Amino acid sequence: MHFTSEQRFDDGVVERPFTFGDIPGVLWTPGSAPGPVPLILMGHPGGLDRMRPRLAARARHAAAEGYAAATIEFPGAGDRPRSAVADQARADLRRALEAGEPVGDDIVDRLVLPLVDQAVPEWRAALDALLALPGIRGPVGFSGGVISIGVRLAVVEPRIVAAGLFAGSYVPRAIFEEARQVTIPLHVLLQWDDEGNDRQVALDLFDAFGSKEKTLQANMGGHTGVPPFAGEDANRFFARHLG
Amino acid sequence: MHFTSEQRFDDGVVERPFTFGDIPGVLWTPGSAPGPVPLILMGHPGGLDRMRPRLAARARHAAAEGYAAATIEFPGAGDRPRSAVADQARADLRRALEAGEPVGDDIVDRLVLPLVDQAVPEWRAALDALLALPGIRGPVGFSGGVISIGVRLAVVEPRIVAAGLFAGSYVPRAIFEEARQVTIPLHVLLQWDDEGNDRQVALDLFDAFGSKEKTLQANMGGHTGVPPFAGEDANRFFARHLG
Repeated sequence: MHFTSEQRFDDGVVERPFTFGDIPGVLWTPGSAPGPVPLILMGHPGGLDRMRPRLAARARHAAAEGYAAATIEFPGAGDRPRSAVADQARADLRRALEAGEPVGDDIVDRLVLPLVDQAVPEWRAALDALLALPGIRGPVGFSGGVISIGVRLAVVEPRIVAAGLFAGSYVPRAIFEEARQVTIPLHVLLQWDDEGNDRQVALDLFDAFGSKEKTLQANMGGHTGVPPFAGEDANRFFARHLG
Repeated sequence: MHFTSEQRFDDGVVERPFTFGDIPGVLWTPGSAPGPVPLILMGHPGGLDRMRPRLAARARHAAAEGYAAATIEFPGAGDRPRSAVADQARADLRRALEAGEPVGDDIVDRLVLPLVDQAVPEWRAALDALLALPGIRGPVGFSGGVISIGVRLAVVEPRIVAAGLFAGSYVPRAIFEEARQVTIPLHVLLQWDDEGNDRQVALDLFDAFGSKEKTLQANMGGHTGVPPFAGEDANRFFARHLG
């Protein structure tokens, strides 16, 4: 993990872009902390540069509450090498949507599963490196999308003790099966009036989660219009579970 | 409105049972307040004596945050005169459930609509009396069930500016139509694993609400197991809208 620059904001939060192998990422840490702080991994749909302002806002909020926050670029996104399988699946998806056809399981599997298979080990390796840094410790939370990556991480990565997930469409059947094995506390955000999102898939996936403590919060405001109070509720969720 | 007794708790909150005409009710007020306080009307499914401990806990929480809270007995519940129509509808409902038959619209209408027609004017008259008391002012919130009563009140009572509703089954089609006319901010609580509740009805009703700001929060814990953090989130909802 190689830090490439460092910026300190007015609120004391330090933002440090890094490269991890050939994967770009960003780490945000509180300006001052009495000791090592818990860590929140922030998922996103890919394109770190484009997502950076929104991710930075969420990360600085988390840092202000005493957490470190980190993210890495999505496989095939930004400057990372593209995958022919993913490009083909995306083309097939676009064709199906334009033709007004249902998006078949086959397309969803080819679109999502290879990304999950690649991203999850990357997140886990990045987690090893992040937890080796001074000033950062567990427990660890996962916050954001892609929800299929969050599901797999929640099942396979024992250092993640709580997950705040953003509902999304195109969830492979295999991920529904994995969702039944999730037992950590979950806080799932759904934008009820997000027309690009399949609401029923989100509700079915929430139902499938095996966790005894799971909360679904549905709000209005469209795809990117998560209301400020929903962000605060998500922060309180992590405060309850990361300490 | 005739107050029958008064009890002051350790936290300063004052609980005052009253009768309003022949309707029993309870008013809770903060121990001390710099001026008149907003009011939260607390709905419930009937049987004030049985519901009293849970209502009192919610009311004292609200009072501790600076609100007055009040409730009145449900038509036909407790010592109030029973309704032959409601008794018949309840018997028909029981028969349908025992026979494993679907509960028809006819039963739901006879079960719920007369109660709504009777209860809503009672709540509005009680609101007149409550707002005439010294130390209580608007804005007013409605919190709880029966959700059909909350819907009707949200449509017809302009002094109610925000409603925190508890999802429930047996919602008449007519109430779905009224829900489309609701425009005030809503916070709807749904116990996802409440087997006595029709989850799809709750989701459809949430979808029907016309409000631009509406939040659905679904949690685990069964019918009476609303987690403490959900109560706190609901309090913050009222704090945002009642000031």
